[in-house]
Parts: sequence; structure tokens; C-alpha cells
Amino acid sequence: MDDDRLDLAGRLATQLRVDAIRCSTKAGSGHPTSSLSAADLMAVLLIGHLRYDWDQPDLATNDHLIFSKGHASPLLYSMFRAVGVIDETELITTYRRFGSRLEGHPTPILPWVDVATGSLGQGLPDAVGVCLAGRHLDQLDYHAWVLCGDSETAEGSMWEALDKASYYRLGNLTAIVDVNRLGQRGPTELEWDLDRYAARVEAFGARPLVIDGHDLAAIDAALSQARMEPDKPTVILARTIKAKGVPEIEDKNGWHGKALPPDMAAKAIAALGGPTDLHITTPRPDPGSPAITPAPDTPITLPRYPLGEKVATRVAFGAGIAALAARPEVVVLDGEVGNSTHAEEFAKVAPDRYFEMFIAEQQLVASATGLAVRGYRPFAATFAVFFSRAFDFIRMAGISGVNIALAGSHAGVEIGQDGPSQMALEDIASIRAVHCSVVLYPADATSTVALVAQMADTDGIVYLRTTRGAYPVIYGPDVTFTIGGCQVHGASPSDQVALIGAGVTLHECLAAAAELDAAGIAARVIDLYSIKPLDRSALIEACQVTGSRLVIAEDHYPAGGIGGAVLEALADAGVPALRVAHLAVSGLPGSGTPGELLDAAGISAHHIVSAARKLVGR
Amino acid sequence: MDDDRLDLAGRLATQLRVDAIRCSTKAGSGHPTSSLSAADLMAVLLIGHLRYDWDQPDLATNDHLIFSKGHASPLLYSMFRAVGVIDETELITTYRRFGSRLEGHPTPILPWVDVATGSLGQGLPDAVGVCLAGRHLDQLDYHAWVLCGDSETAEGSMWEALDKASYYRLGNLTAIVDVNRLGQRGPTELEWDLDRYAARVEAFGARPLVIDGHDLAAIDAALSQARMEPDKPTVILARTIKAKGVPEIEDKNGWHGKALPPDMAAKAIAALGGPTDLHITTPRPDPGSPAITPAPDTPITLPRYPLGEKVATRVAFGAGIAALAARPEVVVLDGEVGNSTHAEEFAKVAPDRYFEMFIAEQQLVASATGLAVRGYRPFAATFAVFFSRAFDFIRMAGISGVNIALAGSHAGVEIGQDGPSQMALEDIASIRAVHCSVVLYPADATSTVALVAQMADTDGIVYLRTTRGAYPVIYGPDVTFTIGGCQVHGASPSDQVALIGAGVTLHECLAAAAELDAAGIAARVIDLYSIKPLDRSALIEACQVTGSRLVIAEDHYPAGGIGGAVLEALADAGVPALRVAHLAVSGLPGSGTPGELLDAAGISAHHIVSAARKLVGR
Repeated sequence: MDDDRLDLAGRLATQLRVDAIRCSTKAGSGHPTSSLSAADLMAVLLIGHLRYDWDQPDLATNDHLIFSKGHASPLLYSMFRAVGVIDETELITTYRRFGSRLEGHPTPILPWVDVATGSLGQGLPDAVGVCLAGRHLDQLDYHAWVLCGDSETAEGSMWEALDKASYYRLGNLTAIVDVNRLGQRGPTELEWDLDRYAARVEAFGARPLVIDGHDLAAIDAALSQARMEPDKPTVILARTIKAKGVPEIEDKNGWHGKALPPDMAAKAIAALGGPTDLHITTPRPDPGSPAITPAPDTPITLPRYPLGEKVATRVAFGAGIAALAARPEVVVLDGEVGNSTHAEEFAKVAPDRYFEMFIAEQQLVASATGLAVRGYRPFAATFAVFFSRAFDFIRMAGISGVNIALAGSHAGVEIGQDGPSQMALEDIASIRAVHCSVVLYPADATSTVALVAQMADTDGIVYLRTTRGAYPVIYGPDVTFTIGGCQVHGASPSDQVALIGAGVTLHECLAAAAELDAAGIAARVIDLYSIKPLDRSALIEACQVTGSRLVIAEDHYPAGGIGGAVLEALADAGVPALRVAHLAVSGLPGSGTPGELLDAAGISAHHIVSAARKLVGR
Repeated sequence: MDDDRLDLAGRLATQLRVDAIRCSTKAGSGHPTSSLSAADLMAVLLIGHLRYDWDQPDLATNDHLIFSKGHASPLLYSMFRAVGVIDETELITTYRRFGSRLEGHPTPILPWVDVATGSLGQGLPDAVGVCLAGRHLDQLDYHAWVLCGDSETAEGSMWEALDKASYYRLGNLTAIVDVNRLGQRGPTELEWDLDRYAARVEAFGARPLVIDGHDLAAIDAALSQARMEPDKPTVILARTIKAKGVPEIEDKNGWHGKALPPDMAAKAIAALGGPTDLHITTPRPDPGSPAITPAPDTPITLPRYPLGEKVATRVAFGAGIAALAARPEVVVLDGEVGNSTHAEEFAKVAPDRYFEMFIAEQQLVASATGLAVRGYRPFAATFAVFFSRAFDFIRMAGISGVNIALAGSHAGVEIGQDGPSQMALEDIASIRAVHCSVVLYPADATSTVALVAQMADTDGIVYLRTTRGAYPVIYGPDVTFTIGGCQVHGASPSDQVALIGAGVTLHECLAAAAELDAAGIAARVIDLYSIKPLDRSALIEACQVTGSRLVIAEDHYPAGGIGGAVLEALADAGVPALRVAHLAVSGLPGSGTPGELLDAAGISAHHIVSAARKLVGR
């Protein structure tokens, strides 16, 4: 960058500072001091390094800019003003207001924002997913630039991210760490000990570049160097001063997340030379061609299963994603258990679109998020219970509005001998609560492959729960399964009770219905394979026919699972659940056979029969 | 260790191998190969370094032995046999059986097990909590020895743990990493690249010791060295061979988590010399005195708040824990937001029992778990939403049966301008589902301090949800609040509708009731401050009086929250919820003032009034 450009960068940095102060002071809240420390870094990036066509945010060759330190949104939005995509009025008068797209922390409601940030330690992991796409799938030379805070390096997820970035040789990834020494409540753990930061970065396989984060030429050199590194992620460790540019509060504790009072802001802005109206042209990317052309209409041949054959739904999941490999946008991510979840079936047919994340579930989900940003349809698979490790990432993926599929195997006490640490018994409750989530739990192989095929076209956070053991195929290949649907077995107008199950308990319900039938009690069975959304009309009809006698059996703890979903749906519909027996796993399970544990949990067929008899009064 | 002892260690290692094979083959499942790789390490530890009185597992001066790689339970239980606390019959015939205490992964159902493991990357973080107690509170010289897998070093939580261990100078912590090169589905990321492991360990402030994990003398030397290091955690990086001792499957992929078939087991056991009956005496700890004497009866003076004064419940939380500081067993952990959660009030009065975990929520909860193992009553505090980052740790704490308090501030859309990334809207659903959890959500300062005081005596995972903004004190100091209770406002036998809220929506319910009253509609308000367990009888009575007309308003997503809790409780009680209006946050919120966001979410007073009028038909 020549001296003129460096001079321009200096003036831009000043404008970014002024604007960050202006918008946050006007809003009365926000993080100006965390914005000021990074203004020089971002000014040089914007002028000399970020290749971005602001008129075409969807251009496949655009670089990516991710604020992992999302609280520095005043800086980000000031950058957007400087490149002309938002105007001064919007910036200054709408920031953090109700209805504004300039939210407290960035979300993809803005077309130039890839992912929602604000939960620290997520932007960098998400960027790893973006860069996996760039290097290994798109094979385009876009670069991801991630502004990180120093405080967030305390999150283990940052190290999962660097570890995977180096493992996958992501030279297209640059983290820029704004080491301003101060966190929210006081000094950070490592303060300005850049050597220790550098040692950690290097040990995790990335290239550290230590610079003065207010030296424009040094920033320019580091960013240039970062782009030229082919096979290693770069981490620019920039020593900065919090609130840089407002001397009276520079490097002072107690100013995190505080807008400057109007008088102090006015003084600071004046000292910085007052508002300016620089408009910046950033480097343009190659026009390029689209990286990935999804082919949702590709014919998919799903496996067919003979009725009665015993097939684990996790095995069917593997077969389903293998069939989906015909679609170029489908990508699979494994959490080092691909031989258990059967995700590895995909690797056998599409190894180039299969990524091993090892035992790092946070990065597993973050990689899916980043790949979804690039237009892929990722399926991330691990044991159902270990998605709890990534719950915050799943939550943020919901806010990011990405479309990702999560496949969790080995649900519930059904897993047997391994014991409670491996049993997902909270997953339905927790994932149901996530914004834009879908929760599926099929009982047999036919319904599993049918649902897996639809997951690739279903928006949101689409979670599939599969079972460890093999159970009989109960549906022929022509039965239809839909997101939000259910299957009703043995319905008659004289049904006295409805048995509601999903997954493994559906088989218990079917066995119970047969036993009840033998005793002269007519029972229908509802296979609630789609727990969210669910088929409200089938539940209402069941209530109408049976006098609202429902037995709900689930391999999950009692709170917030299938029982909660059914009761909430009926309450919303104004159809009271008059007589409900809710069978769920109470107490802490141990080891045992699946049969012993289902029985001990009170969710096996004979418990369902007893509950139904009690409701019916016979 | 002299040659005789080393020889004994060798024989013990062989017995451990034989027993690990025997019990897993008999069970037909388990992880013998992951046990065999670490048998030499554990044999030397047991004979020469673990100071433990097996007859007194609660002795304050005992060392701690934590299997972070919990799947190596055949090895752990074989060690228990060797020291004589379980017998051969129990080991061989009950392992992984229904009803056995020898579960697939260890849980504290066994008196010599501190914490449940099996979710990888948690044992070491838990041990950091144990060692924080040892070094900074108990000031006893017990040591924690943690057997880790190499695969689990991919979990970011392991690095959060080492980071905090070095920050707090935990020389009393030794991680022993069994680097056997093979994970579940294939080679680990770093395989046998011990240098890279060592660089990472060193960069995170711990002392790496690289050894051959089958060289007994080298193991002995490393363990001795580890104990002598006063101020740094030690990480022994032991190069080992998976399945060591069974040559035909040594270092072979495809044998993870598989019991040897009986014929292969018989051959292997014979080759190892057959079953033996060594009984080992381990080094004894100093008799010592109890580390911490809890004083639950210490008089606590809770702050009193004038009715009508506006006080944020997070502020009251700070005051409550400051009052609890009079009890020596109460400890507070902060996630670098102590000035927001007001946890820092505790630091002002008991700085020695306040630990800063920086932004590492997994370690925040794990530290609480470890401190609870040592008999403390930890309160871990961060924003409510960021406990989602530690959800798997919370789940495992439930399985571990520890008693920990979690205080989450800034719940719901009420936080306002910061936007959705900072809003806990899934926390009630997810934490309700956890085994042994308690969920509290008080509306005012008086009820908050009363509940905080009780949290220190409430077993389980006790979660407190607090609000950002200041709201009027509505209870005088003599009102009683109990876990499982509620407060009913304005109840009369002629109530036509009940308004159920908690936290911020309780205030909206009270305003709505006043408005309804002015319109001649009698409404009672239920303050459901205890969401789990909840006061079923108050709900039933409300249904009986009002004809089951309930309006439930919650600052949480619709699935599994307060609405789910109420509906589940009524269904269990057989009292149908005939006419329920459930008001919860639908859609994705943005920024705005708390009032704007509560209103946009449909949970403010006027929405409650409309819903109540609709139910009542007026």
C-alpha cells in the first residue's frame, strides 16, 4: 500500500472512530471502546485487502468479513457506512433501535453479515467452515478475515477452530486478534503478553504475526503476508489500546460496553476532527462463477427395506445420506464417530465432501454453519447426546438463519450398557426450544431415509434423532412421510385410547396396542416422527375419538420432550388433554440391556398397556 | 521406586490387563483396548504415587483419581479390584449389567469415583475445580491424577482446563495422556506426534513430560517429578500402544470399543499368564483434618428492600451471595461478567473464595463441579444465555450428583438493545430437562435473596434466572419463599382467570390483573418463581376456581418453558388445562427497549389482558 493509501487508511480509521462514538452515544449503549481499538486494523483491511463487491454480497468470489467480537458492531456498521451500503442517517439514528437492522450485535439480517455473532468464540469457528468450502470444495481464492477479541481466546472453541484450520491447511483464513488487554470486568488473562499468544497460536499450527495494531504500515504488511500464505491459517496478534483515540479513557478499565456520555462524545469527536464523509472503494474480487450450484432436483434413489427386517435407524441414516451424495451441495461432517452414526457411508461415495472434525462438537456445528453460509447443505453427525456440547452453537446457528442438518445417534436409555453419560435424554427439549428448529425421530428405516432425503430441503436447524438398536421395518416404500406429519396405525372410530410414541417407543406402543386389542381395548398408535413441527390435526382427532385419552411414551426425560410438545400443541389448539398418561424416563438410568432399561424407565410395552388400561378404566 | 516395586508394578499391570479383558468379554461390550494401553501407567500410579485410603474414600487428604477417558472403565474397575474394594466376582460378573454399580462409564455411585465421565474432555476440567480447592482453599497437599485420552485433546474444554490450571498455578494437578494414536474410527489428529502435543501443553502454561507409556521406570520418574512441581500443572504425554499386551490387535484400527470374543480373550489371557490375585497396598495419605467444615447454620443476614423500590434481581443476587459469604463452604465463580451478574459483590467480601474463570463457560461449570466434589457450595455466574455453552457440563454434573448453583443473568428479550445473541430464550427448557435440576426465576429482590439463601442448601443443579432491568419490590421481608412454592396474588373464590408469570412477566401479569379488575374481571396472579419443582396444588386450585382458564406469559421461546412445565404438571395431576392461553416469544427478536421487545414478543400486560378477556369471553 503506498503512502497515499496509508494516509487514506488513517483518515478512514478516524472516521470509523468518530462514527462508532456517534452511533453508540446516540443509542445510549454499545461498545465504542472495543470498536476504537480495532479501527486501524479494519481501516487498512477495508482499503487494501478485503476484496468485496458491495453491490453483490452474494458474489461467490467475495472475501468474507466476520466480526467474531460481535460487540464491536459500531465499528462494523461504520465500515458499512464508509463503503456506502448504509447511510449516515441510518447509522447514527437507528443503531440498536427497535426495528433497525443495525442490531446490538450483527446478524445476517444485513446482507454483508454471514453469521450472527455476540456469543464469543464462535465467529472464528464459523469461518473455518467458510474456509473449508473455499479451499476444499469451491476452490476459489476468497479469503475469510475474522476480527477476534482477546478475551474470547479463553473459549476452548477458538482452539478447536485453529486446530481444524491448521489440520485442513486453511491458508485462506486470517484471524485478527485485537489484543486490547481489557475485558469486560478487568484485565484479560494474558493482557499484552503477545509472546504467549504467539506460542499458543504456533503450537496449534497457525502462523502468528505480532504487530502494533495502530501502526498502519505494519498492519498492511501483515495482511499482505496473511493473504500470501497458502497452507496455513494466519493469526495476526495486534497489540492495541482499548478506546484508542479518546485519550482520557484509553486503556482504562471500567469503560467496556459503555457509550460515551454526550458531552464526552462531543469533545472526543471534535478532538478527532469531527464527522467526515469519506467513501471508500475496496479492492474488487474476480468476477468468478458461482462456487456451488445446488441441484435439489437431482433424482435420488433411496434404499428400500423389506417389512419386518431389523434395521437400526442410524444405519438407515447412513444409507440416506449416501443416496443424497448425488446432490453436489450435500456435505457431511463427522465428530469422530462416523462408524457409529454411520455418517461414514457418505465418505465411501463422496470422500471429497466428507470432513472429519474429530472430537470437537463445537467446531462440528460451527463448520456446518460456515459451509451453509457458502450454500452447502451440511449434515453434522455425532451421538445425539454430544450435540449438548455444541448447544450454544446450535442456538446461534438458529439466529444466523442458516440451514443445517444435525443427526444424533444413540438416543435415550435404549443404548443400553454404556450408561447415562452416553444417553441423550435432554435433546428433544433443548433443541425444540431453538429458533427455527425442526425435530425428527423416526421409528424405522423406511421413514428414516424418507426424512433424511427431506432434510436436505428443509430450512432451519433440522435435527434427526436415531436409535442404536435394530428394530423391524414397519413401513413399505410407498408410505409418505412429511415434516410436520405423522403416521396413525390402526385408527378406528371406536378407539378408546391413543398411544403416542416416536423412535424406539413407537415399537413399544405397537406391541402395547396389540396386547390391548387382545384384551378388547381398541387403541390407535400415533407415530409422531415429526416432533417439531407436529401434526396437530392428528392429535386433535385422536382426542375427539378417544375422549382425550392419550398415553405418551418417550425415551427422554419428562420435561419438555414429546409429552411437552403434545400438551403445548393441544393447549394452543384449545383442545384440552383430559386424560393423559405421560411415560418418560424418570430417575437416573444405569447400564443394562436396552430391554431392561426401557422397562426400568417405565416406557416399555407393558407400562404402556397398564397406563392405557387405567385411562380406559379396564 | 525400587526394582521390587517396579517388578510388582509390572505384575499388577498384567493383572489389570487380564481383568480388563475378562470383565469386558464377559459383558460382551466395553473398551478393553483403551484400557490395555494405559495399564502400565495406572499400575505404577497405584503402587507408588496415588495416596489413598481405600477404607475412607471421604478422607480430606486423599488424592483424587479421575478417569477423563471414562470408557477405560475396565481398567479403573480392575484397579479397584486390585486394591481390594471390589471383589473378583463383582468385577467379572456384574460389569455393565443392569443394576450393577460397575457401569459402562464410571459414575459416583461408586465411592471412589468423584465425577461421572464418558463425555470426553470433562474429567480434566472437573479436576481443575478439585485442585482449585486443594491449592487455594483447603491448602492440603492432595494431588489430582487425571487419565486422559489422546482423542479428547481435540475438545476445546481441555485447553480451557490447562489454561486455568496454569493461571491458578495448580501444581497439584497431573494429567496423564494415554497417547495410543487411535481414536474410535481411525487415527487421531496428531497420532504419535508427541512434540506437537508438548508444544501445545507448554504454550498453555503446563509442564509437558514426554515418556514411553510402557516403560515402568520412566512412568515412575515422571509421576515423581509431577508431584514435586509446586506451581505448574504437569501433563505426562505417554506414548502408548492401543491393546498393548494382546499382540494380534496391538495398534490395530477397528478394535475401539469392542470386547474380545471369548476365544480370543481366552488365548490372550493365557498368553498374559492367566488370572492372578494380586492385592496392592497404595501409599497412604496423611491422616489430616477435614478440609472444609460447612456451616449451614451460620446466621445469614439478608438485605431488606422497601416495597416499590426498583431493584434488578441480578443486583439482589449479588447482595444475596455477599450475605452467604458468611458460610465458609460458599464459593463463587465468575465468567468475566461479574460486574453484570453482580457476582463481584461476593469478591468484595470474600475475595479468597472468588475465582475468575474468564470467558470459558465450560470450565466455569466444571470448576463448580470439582469444588462441589470437595464439599464446597459453588455458585457459578454468567449471562443466562451463556450457560448454553456449558450445557453438556451441566448435564454431566447432574449425572455426577454434585450440588452446584448456577446463576444466569440477562434473561429473555427483556435485556433490550443487545439483541438475540445475548438473550436466554431456551434456558428454562434445556435446564429443566437435566437430571436433578431445579429452576428458579424470581420477580423481585426480596424473593431473589430468599431463594439465593436457599440455593446453598438445595441439592442438585440449582439454576437461578435473573433479569437485567430494575423492577419494583413487591414482597415484604416476611413473605416466605420455598423451592417448589409460589406466591398467589389477589386470589378470590370468584376469580375468572389465573395469570401465571415469573420474573419479568410477573410484573406484566400484575399490571394486567389491575387492568382486568378495573374492567370487572377477577384475576389471580401466580408468581411461579419455582419452575422446577413447581407448586402443583396452586395450579390445580387455580384451575378449579377459574374453570381452568389460565394465561401463561413467559420471556422464553414457546417450547418447553414455563408453559410446558405448567401443562406437564397439570397433565400429571389429571387436571385438564381446558382453556389455556400461552404467551411466549415467537419469532426472532432484535434490538429495542425492553418495553418494545416485551410488547413485540406478545408477552406484555396488554397482550395478557387481551388473552384473559378472550378466555373469559368479555
